Amino acid sequence: MPVNLVAPDPKSLLPVAGVALGVATANIRKPGRKDLLVIRLDDGAKVAGVFTQNRFCAAPVVVAREHLSAPGAGSMRALVVNTGNANAGTGRNGLAHARQTCADLARLLGCTAEQVLPFSTGVIMEPLPVDRIAAGLPACVADLRADNWFNAAQAIMTTDTLPKAVSQQVLIANSTVTITGIAKGAGMIHPDMATMLGYIATDARVSLPLLKSALAHAAKHSFNCITVDGDTSTNDAFMLIASGKADMTELNDADSPAYRALRDAVTQVAARLAQAIVRDGEGATKFISIRVEGGRSEDECRKVGFAIAHSPLVKTAFFASDPNLGRILAAIGYAGVGDLEVGKIELYLDDVLVARDGGRNPDYREEDGQRVMRQSEITVRVVLNRGGISATLWTCDLSHDYVSINADYRS
Amino acid sequence: MPVNLVAPDPKSLLPVAGVALGVATANIRKPGRKDLLVIRLDDGAKVAGVFTQNRFCAAPVVVAREHLSAPGAGSMRALVVNTGNANAGTGRNGLAHARQTCADLARLLGCTAEQVLPFSTGVIMEPLPVDRIAAGLPACVADLRADNWFNAAQAIMTTDTLPKAVSQQVLIANSTVTITGIAKGAGMIHPDMATMLGYIATDARVSLPLLKSALAHAAKHSFNCITVDGDTSTNDAFMLIASGKADMTELNDADSPAYRALRDAVTQVAARLAQAIVRDGEGATKFISIRVEGGRSEDECRKVGFAIAHSPLVKTAFFASDPNLGRILAAIGYAGVGDLEVGKIELYLDDVLVARDGGRNPDYREEDGQRVMRQSEITVRVVLNRGGISATLWTCDLSHDYVSINADYRS
Repeated sequence: MPVNLVAPDPKSLLPVAGVALGVATANIRKPGRKDLLVIRLDDGAKVAGVFTQNRFCAAPVVVAREHLSAPGAGSMRALVVNTGNANAGTGRNGLAHARQTCADLARLLGCTAEQVLPFSTGVIMEPLPVDRIAAGLPACVADLRADNWFNAAQAIMTTDTLPKAVSQQVLIANSTVTITGIAKGAGMIHPDMATMLGYIATDARVSLPLLKSALAHAAKHSFNCITVDGDTSTNDAFMLIASGKADMTELNDADSPAYRALRDAVTQVAARLAQAIVRDGEGATKFISIRVEGGRSEDECRKVGFAIAHSPLVKTAFFASDPNLGRILAAIGYAGVGDLEVGKIELYLDDVLVARDGGRNPDYREEDGQRVMRQSEITVRVVLNRGGISATLWTCDLSHDYVSINADYRS
Repeated sequence: MPVNLVAPDPKSLLPVAGVALGVATANIRKPGRKDLLVIRLDDGAKVAGVFTQNRFCAAPVVVAREHLSAPGAGSMRALVVNTGNANAGTGRNGLAHARQTCADLARLLGCTAEQVLPFSTGVIMEPLPVDRIAAGLPACVADLRADNWFNAAQAIMTTDTLPKAVSQQVLIANSTVTITGIAKGAGMIHPDMATMLGYIATDARVSLPLLKSALAHAAKHSFNCITVDGDTSTNDAFMLIASGKADMTELNDADSPAYRALRDAVTQVAARLAQAIVRDGEGATKFISIRVEGGRSEDECRKVGFAIAHSPLVKTAFFASDPNLGRILAAIGYAGVGDLEVGKIELYLDDVLVARDGGRNPDYREEDGQRVMRQSEITVRVVLNRGGISATLWTCDLSHDYVSINADYRS
């Protein structure tokens, strides 16, 4: 059961002008489930993307990067996403398969293969069943419509228990701009640039350089702030689409309030999607926010935060609602911040001051820690007291169900 | 149940001349179990030690480091080890408690507090019950004898299911030298210099600089090659004691065959103890050796190996005997070796070639992978094909019992 997460109301997901979505049941891995998605963009749409830093990145990641960086990039016409098979660790054949899928869709849509971006997620090191994908594409195209975001969110799920989708509207330069996004992910979550699959579209008119800036800002404060199990996927991708259909002049000044409003709204949508991934983390029973304050740099705050977020001992203590909080101190200690003065650090669990001056707060009472640990949402706050920088990360606990889900994934 | 590990035969554990051990039931955390150990050294013994790199290192680690580096260090007379309480994250009081324990034992043995090295292991951030330790020390002293290694190994256990102890004899410069060691550890295992608690004693005569060299060499090829859960303890310590009682001239040439024979024998004992820790890893059902070959540096081989060894997804696949081997490729990909050429890598499971040329080996058959995965001992071999360096690490799988053990540890 995900932590305080429900499926989005399909009616809450607002169409984005210039963006149509179609899904199909292509039987890629398991029969009878939506597993193929096409996102078609009207002419003139701009697309920016960030991808996994995994050296064993999947074939579609290689091809999508190529297409985005080719001359004339920015005039993308479609994205195609399959689940059930990651097309990763598949060598030269995998690349050919990803290119073929682009060509197959391009033929149906009347564009070039280079105007299509491919994405895959699922089992690694199995050959992509390109024939089943090709057979499913016409059904996707027949299903294309603007109010199809809910089905699109369902079609990209793997071990997710719920679809993840968010819409938001924001007034920018007197024009109402719509932002709608979907994401998938539940395990193999430790983004290193982007995470898993995330697609956000807006009808805003924005220059490509600013679209890329907004994407980088949003990724940094959303998908790059979460971890479930510390494994960085081979297929992570986060794409930001701007159809340019809104009635507004193009945003091209990075310092303008209008651009900042768009960037911040996109970031909010991305952060809600990223948090939804953690809430639906494999086996998760608790949603943990980790806030590290008073650091000298964002890097050291994130190191401390991720050391806590990755520790199996900390995560099992949260699962057990056991305030075995020394495990958090141990994780802070091995985070790799060489000159950390542990005698200055304060550790809070929500509002409870657990540790200070290098040890347990004399006023700390076990029952106070116990009270917070029983909650389904908990904030761990670490105050380093050596600078003015802070960072916030989100993670979940480690439960029996995580082991069950990942021991059984392929069966 | 540990993986192919049995309790050592007490008769196989050879006394080391000049070293006596005594244990007691001090009721430090739970009643009725041996939880206090004193190791008394005859005058003239030399001691070298390596300790955790965790910034939140325990009070006894701080004090032991102080005593070892004080003027006149090397003339240590005793070590005292308690389980049940780590005396870590305990601030100034923790330091006072560790010093008091040294003073209490020194009074009983007729030496100075600075000639005693303190060690603790157990729950973090709880005050050390110094009075119960003081009350237990006389019983330890009354129990001191040379043939007490088996009881000593039992007295330092925490979540260990079996005591870990190894003896070996080696002929050095025509003299039979004895090496006997004990270790404890099952969780919070990811050594960063040394791991958990390990004590090895020899009657060899060896200079202090060479004793330190032998210790560093042994640590590098034993305790620093293992991981259970990736958590680096606050209390890790590995001590090498040389009583100098053997009938031989003192070893003081690092290039001599005699020194190398001692060093290698100590390393073998340490490696057997380290492997015993992994075999007894919390919830372990499989013992996994990870060998990374053909690297450009030891650092990159260890990065790749530890990325595999730490991946919860890889570890749960081993638990399930599921040859979901793409997860290993994904871990190699995010190991942090920036210029890794994935198209050159070969992946073997025992003798089965699983992947090459950036993807699955065309001749690989699922049933071959399945056959190896069902074994209780498995070797993962990664050939990077870019240099001549290799490294071997040892780890275990991630099972339901790991979660159970760590969710219930304090209760």
